[in-house]
Amino acid sequence: MPENLQTILRSATRQVIIAHDRPVVIIGERINPTGKPRLAAALARGDMEPVVKLALKQVAEGADVLDINVGAAGVDEVTALPRAVAAVAAATDVPLCLDSANPTALEAALTVCLGSTLPQRPLINSVNGEERSLSRILPLAAQAGAAVIALCMDDAGLPQGAEGRLAIARKLVERAVAAGLEPQDLLVDCLALTASAPDYVALHTLEAIRRIREELGVNLTLGASNISFGLPDRGAVNAAFLAMAMQAGVNAPIADPAHAAALAKIADLLLGRDEMGIAYVRFMRKRARQAAV
Amino acid sequence: MPENLQTILRSATRQVIIAHDRPVVIIGERINPTGKPRLAAALARGDMEPVVKLALKQVAEGADVLDINVGAAGVDEVTALPRAVAAVAAATDVPLCLDSANPTALEAALTVCLGSTLPQRPLINSVNGEERSLSRILPLAAQAGAAVIALCMDDAGLPQGAEGRLAIARKLVERAVAAGLEPQDLLVDCLALTASAPDYVALHTLEAIRRIREELGVNLTLGASNISFGLPDRGAVNAAFLAMAMQAGVNAPIADPAHAAALAKIADLLLGRDEMGIAYVRFMRKRARQAAV
Repeated sequence: MPENLQTILRSATRQVIIAHDRPVVIIGERINPTGKPRLAAALARGDMEPVVKLALKQVAEGADVLDINVGAAGVDEVTALPRAVAAVAAATDVPLCLDSANPTALEAALTVCLGSTLPQRPLINSVNGEERSLSRILPLAAQAGAAVIALCMDDAGLPQGAEGRLAIARKLVERAVAAGLEPQDLLVDCLALTASAPDYVALHTLEAIRRIREELGVNLTLGASNISFGLPDRGAVNAAFLAMAMQAGVNAPIADPAHAAALAKIADLLLGRDEMGIAYVRFMRKRARQAAV
Repeated sequence: MPENLQTILRSATRQVIIAHDRPVVIIGERINPTGKPRLAAALARGDMEPVVKLALKQVAEGADVLDINVGAAGVDEVTALPRAVAAVAAATDVPLCLDSANPTALEAALTVCLGSTLPQRPLINSVNGEERSLSRILPLAAQAGAAVIALCMDDAGLPQGAEGRLAIARKLVERAVAAGLEPQDLLVDCLALTASAPDYVALHTLEAIRRIREELGVNLTLGASNISFGLPDRGAVNAAFLAMAMQAGVNAPIADPAHAAALAKIADLLLGRDEMGIAYVRFMRKRARQAAV
């Protein structure tokens, strides 16, 4: 297994390094109009103020990277994604994660990231094992010098077991390297579905994370909030799952920093990346000061 | 590694099985006068009513087994422990965990457990790797047919690393077998100290749990609440650590059921012991009904 591959992301002025021997990095998930009609309406009329507010709030809460998704009915992503990216890049200093199923929108947003006098190194969300995705997204990432989230699913869908997801992750790394990227340019996402579905889906995801971490050594992201869909006390289920996922190897979850940022600091403390809890205590003091303002 | 050893505990009327392919068992920790001066005073004057109340409350909250500790200044454990055990056994139907550093008190309490018309099979808390403890407690457990919590420390103290604790656990199993017990009669406790101490103590404990689970196959308990001593938001630290500890192999934690019982159900769901979360949802519905009364 390669030792502590470094996935490097950059804003114009700041660098974030994702590696298994470093603190967990939180990719803030809240700039996403799904289920937020007012945000969708603002995006549709080209109003980026709510996006900027969500960006500032998440950074204050502890997001290290911001995911930007503008996909909603009535929104032209090819126009809106680059505008949102430019607005957030102007308002914050964290690296960005360009989140779209539309390759043309990703291309337009990448142009913004690369076009400034201080070029950014964003994350692309996402490529998967489908041929159509591999052949379109990997060259895009390679050409832009961007990192990319790689989802463990392919033309046959999402394999249930850990073995199948490991096989797809292996293929994703191979194809990325063939396209001119390096293994550290990928953040692999094992995909967490609803835990209340049949066949122990959460356990399979945790095993896939552990296997991929052990055998490929890559860095791992995870959108973990779906796990609790339909269950009581979703916050407690999400927190327990995220703690287990970080123990298994996830080191850059896509999550709500309001809940996940403190948990990531706790995981760093418990997993040997924050001796004596210095960073955790500092984080909690800063949060208490913010709450007192 | 042996497959799913079964540690069996019994009250007069009920059996609890601890095994790695079964749901997590919660050993309720709250019958303990440490830091509870009113409970200590009641015990000193022989008043068992507060003990019984704590027992009933913890069972309602989801405790599967109750730890009974009466150690405090002014309390004669040799008298008080058997009285408390008798009172709790009369009021509840869960198996008991006899918790004392005084072997004579343990003996007296075991006499109560074995003396009824329906003999119980309690858990003894605890033996450790010190010669004095091994030679005194293991024969006691073997003679009473009781299970016993085995702490990974010995005459040289608590080893910092996982390797040292594994070595003590191995010795504890060997000595238990030599004394007439079986490996499934032990619940090994890797010991969780304060995470904010130097040298990554939490990580060493998690690694010890994983190693002992993998190499010895025994069932594992853990008193997990010390981990957060001196840290902000102790509840969040405890919950994250307990989730990680259960993922690593702890399947019978000693904990406060008010917090840990729901978390144990969540762990069962996420770790493949509660398909579709049926038991978790049932537990949460029952809790909501209780809260509504």
